Amino acid sequence: MAFSTPPEVLEAIRARLSQKIIGYTKAYHPGYLLSFENWCERHYGYRFPRESIVLSPGVIPALYRLVPLLTRQDESILILTPSYAPFKKAGEYSDRRVISCPLKSNSGYMTVDFDAMQNLVQDNTLRIKAFFLCNPHNPTGRVWHPHELRRMTEICLENDVWIISDEIHCDLTRIGISHTPAASLFPHSQKIITCMSSSKTFNLAGNLLANIMIPDPGVRTAWLRLHDEFVSPLSLAANIAAWSQCDEWLLQVKRYIDGNFLFLSEWLKKHLPRVRYSIPEGTYLAWIDLAPLSAQDEPKFTSHFFAEKAGVLVEDGSMFVGNGDNHIRLNLACPRAVLSEGLLRIYLALTAST
Amino acid sequence: MAFSTPPEVLEAIRARLSQKIIGYTKAYHPGYLLSFENWCERHYGYRFPRESIVLSPGVIPALYRLVPLLTRQDESILILTPSYAPFKKAGEYSDRRVISCPLKSNSGYMTVDFDAMQNLVQDNTLRIKAFFLCNPHNPTGRVWHPHELRRMTEICLENDVWIISDEIHCDLTRIGISHTPAASLFPHSQKIITCMSSSKTFNLAGNLLANIMIPDPGVRTAWLRLHDEFVSPLSLAANIAAWSQCDEWLLQVKRYIDGNFLFLSEWLKKHLPRVRYSIPEGTYLAWIDLAPLSAQDEPKFTSHFFAEKAGVLVEDGSMFVGNGDNHIRLNLACPRAVLSEGLLRIYLALTAST
Repeated sequence: MAFSTPPEVLEAIRARLSQKIIGYTKAYHPGYLLSFENWCERHYGYRFPRESIVLSPGVIPALYRLVPLLTRQDESILILTPSYAPFKKAGEYSDRRVISCPLKSNSGYMTVDFDAMQNLVQDNTLRIKAFFLCNPHNPTGRVWHPHELRRMTEICLENDVWIISDEIHCDLTRIGISHTPAASLFPHSQKIITCMSSSKTFNLAGNLLANIMIPDPGVRTAWLRLHDEFVSPLSLAANIAAWSQCDEWLLQVKRYIDGNFLFLSEWLKKHLPRVRYSIPEGTYLAWIDLAPLSAQDEPKFTSHFFAEKAGVLVEDGSMFVGNGDNHIRLNLACPRAVLSEGLLRIYLALTAST
Repeated sequence: MAFSTPPEVLEAIRARLSQKIIGYTKAYHPGYLLSFENWCERHYGYRFPRESIVLSPGVIPALYRLVPLLTRQDESILILTPSYAPFKKAGEYSDRRVISCPLKSNSGYMTVDFDAMQNLVQDNTLRIKAFFLCNPHNPTGRVWHPHELRRMTEICLENDVWIISDEIHCDLTRIGISHTPAASLFPHSQKIITCMSSSKTFNLAGNLLANIMIPDPGVRTAWLRLHDEFVSPLSLAANIAAWSQCDEWLLQVKRYIDGNFLFLSEWLKKHLPRVRYSIPEGTYLAWIDLAPLSAQDEPKFTSHFFAEKAGVLVEDGSMFVGNGDNHIRLNLACPRAVLSEGLLRIYLALTAST
C-alpha cells in the first residue's frame, strides 16, 4: 500500500514509546487478543477459542513453519493456480511436492474446479495432506462464497487433508462484499488453520506480526515448542489501535480503492477495450488478461517488458506458479494520480509495440 | 535493563513514524551498516567485510539457526560452564549433544581450563564441531583477555571447530576494561562467527534485531537461503541512532552501573561478609557465591527461595547448565534504590533462615 497507516496507529506507537523501554516482550497485554477477537467477531462473526492463537512474524513465515508440522517428507501440498508464489516455495522449502489445481475461467471470473480438486485429493499416489487456501484469493481477487468454501473444505476434511487458510486480504473486500473465514463454517473442525494479520489492511507489514489460529492442540504445542518467540511491543500497540479504533479509516480506504478499481475499469474500456478485465471482489490487486493484445503463444507483456518500456513495476503471470499466462497484476492501493500515470505509461508502451 | 532507552533512539523512531508507512523493509539504508561498522571500529578497532553481515531477530535465534548449518546430527557443541542456558538449548533443539567444559575458579575469578578444553576438542569420540563462546561471559562477567581468546580460538581452529562468539554484552564492560572481539584477533579466519546487537546496551531487545558476521561465504549463503527475512523499519531507525548518537549516553550508563557494582560490593562486605564476590569485568550481572552461607551440600538459596521469602526474582546456579551451585545472578542495571531495597530483602530472608 502506498497509503499512510492510520493516525491512530501512529499515535499508539508514539504512546508506547513514551514508556521509554523497548525490552523483551510477549503478547501478555489482554488488549491484544481482545481487540483482535472483537475485530473478527464484529467484521466476520468469526469466533475462535482464545487459546488457539499463536503469533508469527507474518503469514508466509507461518506457512513455512506449518509445512513440516502437518506433512511428512513423502506427502504433498495442494494449491489453486494462479497462486501467490510463496505458497509453492513454502512447500518446496521443506522438500514437499506442491500440486497445482488450476482455477477455471468463466469469462474471466475464476472458479474452483471441484471435480479436478477432488480427483487430486483422492489420488493416493499424490499423498496430498495439506491445502493452502488463499481466501480472498491472490492474484485473482476472488472472495470465495460460503458454498465454495464449504465444498473445498469438505473435499479436504473427507480425505484427511489439513486446510491452511491465508486470510491476509480479508479486510480488503469491495464494499458490499462479505468475507467468510473458512473456519467459521466448520467451528468444530480442528483441521482448519486460519492466518490473519493487520499487515495488508493497515500498511503494517514492517510490524512483523500475524495471528495464526491453530485449533488442534497437538499442532499448536509443536509450534510453540519451536517458535514461542518474543515480539515487538511497538507492533502490539499498533495492532491494538488498528483493531479497536480504525473501522472508519478502513471504510474510507476501501471506498478509495473501490474508486480506483472503477477508474481502472473505465480506463481499460476506453483505451484498451480488447483487454479482459473485471473488478475483483477483494484485495487491492487487479488481475488483467492481456492475451488479446498478444499475437504470439509466448507471453510478450512481461514484468521485464513494462519495467523497461514503461518504467512501471508490475507482476506478470509467470510469477504466479501457473495458469496466469499473459496476465499482469497491478497494485491499486495507491493515489489515483499514480495509477493514472502508470496506466498512461503502460498504454504508451503497449501501443508502441502492437 | 530497567533504564530508559536513549532519548536519541526514541526520537529516531518517532522521526521514522513521521514517514507514516510501516511496510515491508530490508536493511537497505546505507546508514544501518555504516553506523554499525563505525561503532565497531570506534569502540573495538574491529573491522569486517560488509558482505559478511546477516540479520537475525536476536543472538539466541541466531545460535539456533547456526547449529544445523555448522554441525551434523552426530556432531556436538562445546560450551563453558556456568553457561547462559539457551546455549545448551540451542544445541539440543537440533538434537546435537552439548559438551560442558567447566571454568576454573581462582579465588572466585573464573578462568578457562585450556588443557581440559583441548582434551575435549581433541577427543574423537565427542566429535565437537562448534564452540559457543560467550564474550563477555554470562553469568560470570569475565571479559576475556586477548591471550585467553587467542588460546581458545587456536584450540578450535587447530581442530576444525567453528567458533560462534556471542558478544551481546560487549558494550557493557566496566570503565577501563576493553572488550576484544574474538574475530578481530584472527582477521583471516573464516571460522569465527560474531554475534552483536544493540539489545542489551540500549534496552532494545524488543527491536528483534541482531547483526551476525559470518565470514564464510558458504555458511552465509545457506543462512540467507533459509532466513533472508524482512525487518522492522522502526528497529533500523533505532539502531542507527544508537550507534551514531549515543556514545555519551552509554558512558553515563556504564558509570551508573559501575557505581551499582561498587555499592553491591561494599554492601556485601558490610552485611554478608562470608559471601564470595568480586566486581566483574563486564556485563550488568553480578555472580554471587552463597556457598559459605549454606551448611548443606544441596543448594539451599534458590530462585524459588528468594522469590518466596524475599519477593525478589534472581537467577540461581541451576539455571546455568552446571558449575554454578550455590550462586545467584543479580541484574544490576536498575536504579540504586531498587538494588538497595532488593538487597535488604535478600538480607532479611537469608538471616531469617541461617
